[in-house]
Amino acid sequence: MEFTIIRSDQKIRTALQAKIDDLTKPKGSLGMLEDLALQVGLIQQTLSPQLRHPQNIVFAADHGIVAEGVSVAPKEVTWQQVCHFTHPQGTGGVNFLCRQHGFTLKVVDAGVDHDLPKDRGIIDLKVRRGTSNFLRGPAMSEAEMEQCLAGGAQVVRQCAEEGSNVLSFGEMGIGNTSASSLWMHCFTGIPLAECVGAGSGLDIKGILHKYDVLSRAKENYRGDGSPRDIIRWFGGFEMVMAVGAMLQAAELKMVILVDGFIMTSCMLAASQLYPEVLDYAVFGHCGDESGHRKLLDAMGAKPLLHLGLRLGEGTGAICAYPILDSAVRMINEMDSFSAADITKYF
Amino acid sequence: MEFTIIRSDQKIRTALQAKIDDLTKPKGSLGMLEDLALQVGLIQQTLSPQLRHPQNIVFAADHGIVAEGVSVAPKEVTWQQVCHFTHPQGTGGVNFLCRQHGFTLKVVDAGVDHDLPKDRGIIDLKVRRGTSNFLRGPAMSEAEMEQCLAGGAQVVRQCAEEGSNVLSFGEMGIGNTSASSLWMHCFTGIPLAECVGAGSGLDIKGILHKYDVLSRAKENYRGDGSPRDIIRWFGGFEMVMAVGAMLQAAELKMVILVDGFIMTSCMLAASQLYPEVLDYAVFGHCGDESGHRKLLDAMGAKPLLHLGLRLGEGTGAICAYPILDSAVRMINEMDSFSAADITKYF
Repeated sequence: MEFTIIRSDQKIRTALQAKIDDLTKPKGSLGMLEDLALQVGLIQQTLSPQLRHPQNIVFAADHGIVAEGVSVAPKEVTWQQVCHFTHPQGTGGVNFLCRQHGFTLKVVDAGVDHDLPKDRGIIDLKVRRGTSNFLRGPAMSEAEMEQCLAGGAQVVRQCAEEGSNVLSFGEMGIGNTSASSLWMHCFTGIPLAECVGAGSGLDIKGILHKYDVLSRAKENYRGDGSPRDIIRWFGGFEMVMAVGAMLQAAELKMVILVDGFIMTSCMLAASQLYPEVLDYAVFGHCGDESGHRKLLDAMGAKPLLHLGLRLGEGTGAICAYPILDSAVRMINEMDSFSAADITKYF
Repeated sequence: MEFTIIRSDQKIRTALQAKIDDLTKPKGSLGMLEDLALQVGLIQQTLSPQLRHPQNIVFAADHGIVAEGVSVAPKEVTWQQVCHFTHPQGTGGVNFLCRQHGFTLKVVDAGVDHDLPKDRGIIDLKVRRGTSNFLRGPAMSEAEMEQCLAGGAQVVRQCAEEGSNVLSFGEMGIGNTSASSLWMHCFTGIPLAECVGAGSGLDIKGILHKYDVLSRAKENYRGDGSPRDIIRWFGGFEMVMAVGAMLQAAELKMVILVDGFIMTSCMLAASQLYPEVLDYAVFGHCGDESGHRKLLDAMGAKPLLHLGLRLGEGTGAICAYPILDSAVRMINEMDSFSAADITKYF
């Protein structure tokens, strides 16, 4: 699947910056709010940007590599959590944050190894009941990768039709920090040891085993080294769907809130295919997973929050939404020095 | 004025931590939200804490030291900004944040050098039209200091009567980074040069001049070295009122959201009088003002946000409120592993 992503037209930048600088505050004194207002103004090509109908899309799938003992959590937690946060009572981690910040939650079965209930509104895009074990070959076929990219894009187009112009993406997939570490290593060249962490709670022995498995997986790689090949070889269905979703969101000029380590890896993969996607990315959170900080640095990203979250599901991105909202309110609701009759001293 | 501040009873800690650990997420995976939920639970002595009617109180006053050219902003900006953010249109920096997060804004004239309008709801606790120049003697008398402590406490009692249990404090006072730098230096022992910064926008030459003035002020100090004496010698009326407000809030077991450099200095001063006040403090933001990071470190504080804000007015504290709100929602709205029927793997 191909996307048409254009860089934000920079012609409006001067006017945007002038408007921000004339708000009644010392120049630059609202820090990252000012940077964000500029970015959203550029994305939307307006001096009065608006955020409409935020949605958080959680892609879920299982990973064949889990058979190698790379995760402390058993595979069944994937489907259990999907059932949990689509339960009418909404008592999961992502649920209270969606309620707090007015997000609609969409949950997509990208490839969970379970027959999920039909009455929960789960969007069924199941490719297969979990990827193949990438220790022994590619996690998915080229056709499956294309299916994932198209599936993620389809969900985003639905959100656009519903009136959204800002989306966050999250994931649920036991084993997906392993896949993310390999994407990070392959795309950034950072030594694998610096890309591997505790995931949902491995101890040192567990991390060493995970590193050993991932090293061997990398040694066994027999692909052509292209971004698309690396994406399909090590990726998860939920991760590749997120890549497709991000690319579609950028094509539609939506603001993309990037969550933790796994979603940052997906943005990295997306930017390997279309570097322009980064213009649309707002990095919400730098988490505790080892390697996340290094990954963000490698991408030149400045995350909004550092709260030590490592839950996934989009929680870090949603927590950052009020900051984004503040930025947009700032540029729309503050007045200028001239209008307010305050001495401009700089 | 004396306060009766007690440390949070720790007996409930075990039950609080157990409740947090049994929520459906890997242990610790909601990072600082978990720390905050524990803190608010301890403050309120309950497993189901609640935040009620948040208010932001901005104390405003002028500083005699401004005559020495320590600020790039002219003194008149103090009263202009007070008029600005009490204007019915509410187009100041603090206003859009208060609207966004449901804060009531109270503005207190602690000692502004201007006849402020009577029809804006400004709380009139004016001590005097600005402090004395502390280069030549104490900024205020002991009686004025007591008046400030009592005034700040009075506003907080009013908030409690209105049903609030969480407050943030902010300030407007050209020259108050100078006063804050001296408090920081005197109370922490950190060299003065590391406590002095650009304020609302000084250049290098301006900062050197400010440092020179503050060094001479410190040399000229002839007080007894006690916390109360240092507070009155270098403090601003708005700052000492904030100290009284913080102490009263702690006595009433309210959560105190601490804003930027100046409010952190006020919390430092408050903790010099009553160390127990720190149990009630949530540090909202680490700003760009030189010395703020060092001050927070010296206090062992972990601020929630790092957004490069340096506006004051309570803006950093209010931006942090949704994180605090998330923590409280987490402990109330997430269910436990046992209730959710999810495999607990740790």
